[in-house]
Amino acid sequence: MTRPLRLSEQSLRTTDSPITELIYTAMRDRSLISLAAGLVDEETLPTAAVAQAVAAVLADPSVGRAALQYGTTAGLGSLRLALAQRLAGDFTQQPTAAAPLADALAARCIITSGSQQLLYLVSEALIDPGDIVITESPSYFVYHGVIESFGARVLGVPMDHEGMSTTALAELLAELERAGQLHRVKLIYTVDYFQNPTGLSLSASRRVELLRLAQQYSRDGRILILEDAAYRDLRYDGSDLPSILSLPGGEEYVVYAGTFSKPCSPGLKTGYGFLPADLHEPILHLKGNHDFGSSNLSQYIVAHLLQSGAFDQHLEHLRTTYRRKRDAMLEALAETFADCPAVQWNQPAGGLYVWLEFTDGTRTGPDSPLFRAARQAGVLVVPGEFCHVTTDQDRPRHQLRLSFGVADPPRLREGVRRLGQAYAQVTKQLQTV
Amino acid sequence: MTRPLRLSEQSLRTTDSPITELIYTAMRDRSLISLAAGLVDEETLPTAAVAQAVAAVLADPSVGRAALQYGTTAGLGSLRLALAQRLAGDFTQQPTAAAPLADALAARCIITSGSQQLLYLVSEALIDPGDIVITESPSYFVYHGVIESFGARVLGVPMDHEGMSTTALAELLAELERAGQLHRVKLIYTVDYFQNPTGLSLSASRRVELLRLAQQYSRDGRILILEDAAYRDLRYDGSDLPSILSLPGGEEYVVYAGTFSKPCSPGLKTGYGFLPADLHEPILHLKGNHDFGSSNLSQYIVAHLLQSGAFDQHLEHLRTTYRRKRDAMLEALAETFADCPAVQWNQPAGGLYVWLEFTDGTRTGPDSPLFRAARQAGVLVVPGEFCHVTTDQDRPRHQLRLSFGVADPPRLREGVRRLGQAYAQVTKQLQTV
Repeated sequence: MTRPLRLSEQSLRTTDSPITELIYTAMRDRSLISLAAGLVDEETLPTAAVAQAVAAVLADPSVGRAALQYGTTAGLGSLRLALAQRLAGDFTQQPTAAAPLADALAARCIITSGSQQLLYLVSEALIDPGDIVITESPSYFVYHGVIESFGARVLGVPMDHEGMSTTALAELLAELERAGQLHRVKLIYTVDYFQNPTGLSLSASRRVELLRLAQQYSRDGRILILEDAAYRDLRYDGSDLPSILSLPGGEEYVVYAGTFSKPCSPGLKTGYGFLPADLHEPILHLKGNHDFGSSNLSQYIVAHLLQSGAFDQHLEHLRTTYRRKRDAMLEALAETFADCPAVQWNQPAGGLYVWLEFTDGTRTGPDSPLFRAARQAGVLVVPGEFCHVTTDQDRPRHQLRLSFGVADPPRLREGVRRLGQAYAQVTKQLQTV
Repeated sequence: MTRPLRLSEQSLRTTDSPITELIYTAMRDRSLISLAAGLVDEETLPTAAVAQAVAAVLADPSVGRAALQYGTTAGLGSLRLALAQRLAGDFTQQPTAAAPLADALAARCIITSGSQQLLYLVSEALIDPGDIVITESPSYFVYHGVIESFGARVLGVPMDHEGMSTTALAELLAELERAGQLHRVKLIYTVDYFQNPTGLSLSASRRVELLRLAQQYSRDGRILILEDAAYRDLRYDGSDLPSILSLPGGEEYVVYAGTFSKPCSPGLKTGYGFLPADLHEPILHLKGNHDFGSSNLSQYIVAHLLQSGAFDQHLEHLRTTYRRKRDAMLEALAETFADCPAVQWNQPAGGLYVWLEFTDGTRTGPDSPLFRAARQAGVLVVPGEFCHVTTDQDRPRHQLRLSFGVADPPRLREGVRRLGQAYAQVTKQLQTV
């Protein structure tokens, strides 16, 4: 007789990501064109550069042995310093000299197993059941699952072309205060560069306003901003924006999360964070319990790629490739939906996603006629409702996330064509009815 | 004005490992001989074998790209199968054919960021505040910290030369049942091969008895056995023992944890677990939230080392090296303490540790005269009380853990000589008083 397992409360709250099934479907059937998964382009993966970096690291026996030995929980010092030096460029408005600034930033840096682990550790460090985390809506839904696994509520703030609406955020915070719930707010989560799923960035003035609101409402204790910059390096047009972390006062309020998965290689599983000084030690202690430090060899590889210039070279190549793919998708959308004014989408300046909206209210959920017709036509997409706060009964159900990360331009065009075919089929049926 | 951080309950329960300070002390002062850290021997790290494996993986562009792309949360299929095939050798008493058995084991396998992450995930999946985890005492103290971070109580069971006393375990379980606390017991943790810190292994008959007790007392729900086999491959004498997992009925009750950190390279940060079938999915969901899969490149490297035979070759080399180091330490102890019958130690057949006891009651804690004199003489050791359940006020305080992992034989001998000098100094002072 099998005795029942007794899972923890947290385990019972932890569910699978809604798109796991989509990803496995795409893996099983190679004839399907996946515009669903946010994976990176296979062809861009830097096998030669990584091979060179590993060979260089392991060629020197003493460096090689250090790379194969245990590292520290915080991560490789030279890598943390290199990351800090890059980030120091954000702080130009502030009068600090670059070198001490980089040292100070490096001391508050931690290397993690992808930026996902940083998001997890920060949540684990701050959230108790009953707490509240505020996010953009739509947002990176995998992180919504993390928040809910800790027993917290996710509250969404709508977005416009400048990113999260700080007016709506201010209203939400004021409302929470009136309801006596302000003390439960621990974090405001923003993917402020080329957001997943909308491709939108938070504008410069909104960054200032977001930080000001976090400060203003930190009456019952600090409300931190979790600034997820995962897509920052994937910029195809326009100029870079300074991080919220680098705004005056930002260091106390902002956790900045970065990764090498999107701009280099997910297989190295190396991300990083810059933390408020008083959060660094608590996070290190948690990470000590998790794994006492991420893969040391990966860290040596990444440090070498940064130091040799190979990373920046790769980034140029990546930008050219993705810019071409984004353009292919946008052109295909313009062609396919030329006669459909009800179908609207944004023109992302970076990242991996185009966000599409059916203003005629066409449903896009996993059981909708459109989703099924698209699947039938051989294209997989992510229902927009997966990206909204799923406890919100009124969330929009007529949007789609399209990723141009994986497929090559001909497949992107064909995928969009199939989506158009599915839409035509579904709307014609509706008109017939 | 700095607003206070508000850390989660779990974060507040998470503390630093007591030996972190010791390890940093050793790193700062290279004249110190560290018999403290359980790190692996630097000279044995397989830089050439790893360089070859990476080169082979990255030489084939399609394999190389797969290694640099995202993997699955459970980990690389070929690696899980290779591990399952190795473990299948344990199941010789059972009539199942090897191939389906290996497939079944592979389906319950998960690759983690070192075995530490597996211990963490299993604890997170099972433990709620107020629960109880039973461990050997002394035991791997870092894991005690993990248990306590989840708000559970650690209860220790004494050991003898056959490992955990199953008589004492039976008494403890009966006592917990009488006290109405049996339903809080979630896990029994055992490092059953060359244990950290004692070097002892759980005997074959005790393995059977331990499993029987877990089954017998699983009345209010299953009590799992967490079998930490981290040191299993580091065997210098005698023959291997089958895992508890492989005993009849074990698959339902046992989580088996293994690692490549000790027998290969900590820098690859690759461990693994075999889980009861119904625990596999809950753990995958948690790991999905943590990092959706460990470093893929490391997994390809390890899979290649296993498949090419380089891992087994390395293991032979490692055993020869550590056997020699163990012997050096044991000889030095025999010489140094020849005239001190009050100083006793075991003869470990594997692992990285010698456990030493002062039967005259000489204290060994971090503030003890002996510890300070040893530090003064230039040798670092781990106070045995760190390894016992720290909430137990009556825990022994006259033991030491000595590691022969890091130092070479001449430094091991010198380290033991310095310890002897410190002991002589302290006992002479005592005699003078």
